[in-house]
Amino acid sequence: MRTPRSEDDILALLAEHFPVLHPDLLVGRGDDCAVLRPGGPLAVTCDVFVEDVHFRRRYFSAADIGHKALAVNLSDVASAGARPTGFMLGLTLTGREDETWLHGLAEGMAALARRWGVGLAGGDLARAAGLHLCVTAWGELPADLVHGLRRARAREGDVVFMLGSPGLARVGLSLLEAAVGPDEAAAVRAAWPAACAAHVRPEPLVAEGMVAARLAARDPDRFSLMDVSDGLARDIPRLLGGHGAVLELPSDFLPDEVRRYADERGLDAASFAFEGGEDYALAGTCPPGLWDDVARALPSARRLGVVAGREIILNGCRRSGGGFDHFA
Amino acid sequence: MRTPRSEDDILALLAEHFPVLHPDLLVGRGDDCAVLRPGGPLAVTCDVFVEDVHFRRRYFSAADIGHKALAVNLSDVASAGARPTGFMLGLTLTGREDETWLHGLAEGMAALARRWGVGLAGGDLARAAGLHLCVTAWGELPADLVHGLRRARAREGDVVFMLGSPGLARVGLSLLEAAVGPDEAAAVRAAWPAACAAHVRPEPLVAEGMVAARLAARDPDRFSLMDVSDGLARDIPRLLGGHGAVLELPSDFLPDEVRRYADERGLDAASFAFEGGEDYALAGTCPPGLWDDVARALPSARRLGVVAGREIILNGCRRSGGGFDHFA
Repeated sequence: MRTPRSEDDILALLAEHFPVLHPDLLVGRGDDCAVLRPGGPLAVTCDVFVEDVHFRRRYFSAADIGHKALAVNLSDVASAGARPTGFMLGLTLTGREDETWLHGLAEGMAALARRWGVGLAGGDLARAAGLHLCVTAWGELPADLVHGLRRARAREGDVVFMLGSPGLARVGLSLLEAAVGPDEAAAVRAAWPAACAAHVRPEPLVAEGMVAARLAARDPDRFSLMDVSDGLARDIPRLLGGHGAVLELPSDFLPDEVRRYADERGLDAASFAFEGGEDYALAGTCPPGLWDDVARALPSARRLGVVAGREIILNGCRRSGGGFDHFA
Repeated sequence: MRTPRSEDDILALLAEHFPVLHPDLLVGRGDDCAVLRPGGPLAVTCDVFVEDVHFRRRYFSAADIGHKALAVNLSDVASAGARPTGFMLGLTLTGREDETWLHGLAEGMAALARRWGVGLAGGDLARAAGLHLCVTAWGELPADLVHGLRRARAREGDVVFMLGSPGLARVGLSLLEAAVGPDEAAAVRAAWPAACAAHVRPEPLVAEGMVAARLAARDPDRFSLMDVSDGLARDIPRLLGGHGAVLELPSDFLPDEVRRYADERGLDAASFAFEGGEDYALAGTCPPGLWDDVARALPSARRLGVVAGREIILNGCRRSGGGFDHFA
């Protein structure tokens, strides 16, 4: 398959996957700026996705890369309780990607974008030594929740809850990193399908974020929600904004593959899951009186514990630090 | 000077230069999303700025890099006729940047942001082999120009005009690239101050874009404006959208340093300037009846010629192609 010979070739290829116009755009791609239709307040986020930092081509297909680069951004939009509507893509290629690969990248991203009605508004192309994607995504907030869902709204006694599968992506990451060669990677995928999918194809909890926004509108200053991408150990303190919490991660809340992985290695499964990373789960707090409604509206939400004191206690043990830092 | 030890260190450093809040933001930095105050239609753009592709550390100071990464985006916002209000920064560092360097980067960017009242709404940090900045910037359009200024609105007989200094950045780029060592680069800067500044510290024509938007509101479907970043040779056809033009770039319109550079090398100065690149100038078209008002409101605007036929004729010669393509 041939390699595109110009920027226009690549733009034409992308246009096969992404419509130029979108209902939330007054001006679509092809001009210096896209123009967003005026509406309610807009939640905006930006995440970079870099080869050999966030993904490896060894076990991420082109479609996986396209999917995840957008998914991690939609997860942030979801955590604000917004309906995602559009995104910009800064795409730096190495010049060695052929058209098959580029179609894969575009289609992985476009399939996720179509699922949530999100439009590609524009972006920029460059060529450099490493593959690098930078996505800025946005979504519309409901009129009765102009600030969106934020972190650090908890008070003593509030319920801490989460949605998603803690630790699962970390299992996938660990196993795929250790796999030597494509046969071994294929064997890992066959034996640990949920864990590999969680790392390579995370599904942003967009619908759950929008449901949470409806519940939060009743008491917006007392409801928190955040995207868990650096691991619960690192993100729960950010969620609580100075408060502590007494939390339980019971064994039956952990995904099967996390328990199996931890058992086989003699690790504490709850600690492993708590340190997690790449979960793209949502963690939140709400007043105790709202918890039953949250549980009814979001059946996959699990109560982790209560806001209390200054420290994080997990399964009876005091926790400190953990999680991922690019510069530590 | 020490190297930051964590992402939080870098975020704290950035916070010394950029206020967390901004009048156009309901929620500033520090949460999963920023929230933009609802307003008129929003013009949005995205440009990447990559080491050894768009700049070299050999002759771009940290402050130059910060300035230009934002400037090239504000130039796009300007070309839509919008008032720039905010931006997101995807910042990939190599881990070798010390605090002095990072303060320089932040301050170069923050000084330009302050000048136009633009807020840093958020972003993402990563560490990889090469320095890479991806900026997504946006601005508010006037209520009577909901689509902003666009390309390809010209009709036969319309006036083609430009603002800015064609070819000047190309002189700076050529000379700085050829300079061996810091002494030679300093000598180049001393001898060619305008050309080096045009390449290293381009000033986006934000005020001019907003003035053009006021004029265009009278006849928005007959007024074009675009950012000239890949050279007039490549960008004028994009501006004209299928039309041709008969253009003159008279010697007295060219910057002194462009004429001097071309004379010393026996080049045709107008052709050199036309092929340009990195100009961050604005080029536009308007109906003939509006040109006098444009010239009065924008004294630095220069009339280049008229829209005519299908070809681009420059100083009596037919032009084809030219300009920069990352993948050609």
